[in-house]
Amino acid sequence: MPRVSQDHLEARRRQILDGSRVCFARYGYEGATVRRLEEATGLSRGAIFHHFRDKESLFLALAEEDAARMADVVAEQGLVQVMRDLLTEGSDHPADWLGTRLEVSRRLRTDPEFRGRWAERSQQLTAATRQRLLWQRRAGNLRDDVDVDVLTAYLELVLEGLVSHLAMGLPGDDLGPVLDLVEESVRRHRARAAVDS
Amino acid sequence: MPRVSQDHLEARRRQILDGSRVCFARYGYEGATVRRLEEATGLSRGAIFHHFRDKESLFLALAEEDAARMADVVAEQGLVQVMRDLLTEGSDHPADWLGTRLEVSRRLRTDPEFRGRWAERSQQLTAATRQRLLWQRRAGNLRDDVDVDVLTAYLELVLEGLVSHLAMGLPGDDLGPVLDLVEESVRRHRARAAVDS
Repeated sequence: MPRVSQDHLEARRRQILDGSRVCFARYGYEGATVRRLEEATGLSRGAIFHHFRDKESLFLALAEEDAARMADVVAEQGLVQVMRDLLTEGSDHPADWLGTRLEVSRRLRTDPEFRGRWAERSQQLTAATRQRLLWQRRAGNLRDDVDVDVLTAYLELVLEGLVSHLAMGLPGDDLGPVLDLVEESVRRHRARAAVDS
Repeated sequence: MPRVSQDHLEARRRQILDGSRVCFARYGYEGATVRRLEEATGLSRGAIFHHFRDKESLFLALAEEDAARMADVVAEQGLVQVMRDLLTEGSDHPADWLGTRLEVSRRLRTDPEFRGRWAERSQQLTAATRQRLLWQRRAGNLRDDVDVDVLTAYLELVLEGLVSHLAMGLPGDDLGPVLDLVEESVRRHRARAAVDS
């Protein structure tokens, strides 16, 4: 394929993904009608579904892209940083993540078929988190009395709680110290003695 | 009011609450039609709405009762025990909690009016958690380098994550060690030194 066509295809795909992300975040999956997707992307349904088989495929591509971006931040800065970003409006990794993530959580709860389709795609965040923790352990920063899989599951559970908290419209501005505690609880301490009780 | 009438009213109220809890857990709030509530309670709509103004009031009474039961467990055993109970099928505090709690979480996400009505009722779990932590601090079991309000918010965030995790149909049977870590991270350690990094 000539380079210019490839670039054109990529640009179109980008335009569709960016427009529909805003649309899904505003209206939810069911509410993001084809008409609204056309408006949000500035493209006809013909053009949109030339690039994506159907709305489901478009949403999954979006969710997958956001999960990959989250995984990149995890690899560089850890999952707690992903959580801090969710609390910070106007950060480099803005709240459009949250829209997709909420929609994924909602559909996982209500749509058993979606669970299967999402399962394989959701592995990358877990894998990136686990990888980062292993790296931190080798660097001597991680506590070594708890299995890395347990620490991974712990951080993912807190992330899910945070997503749910924000989805319920509860304020996030006082959760900074809570995330400090979460971060500290996976780190190695110079002296870690027996628990009192 | 004569004692026997009072007992009768109480028994009816109990019958309605127990039946409708099962009904809400199975069908969700919207799916729990008046017809289904009649079947589940074995009472007519006239009898049901003699005791509760409308479906909304019935659901709130149920959610409030479940929150009070959770608060009792918190007072005696702590919020982490509430979470352990959620993981244990056939426990004394069974999963019918989870049904109501999930429905509350879902409606908080989707129904802004419900948020206001629920806000006052949800305070009791927070209050019980905070009270328990203060008691543990006085007993010397709690870490004293983090504010009790931060520890309360931390435990509530993990609970929300757990509820969401279970709601998404993900397995909970490997989360025991994660809850051990959560519990340990609010406790006092004999020696707690500077963090490595």
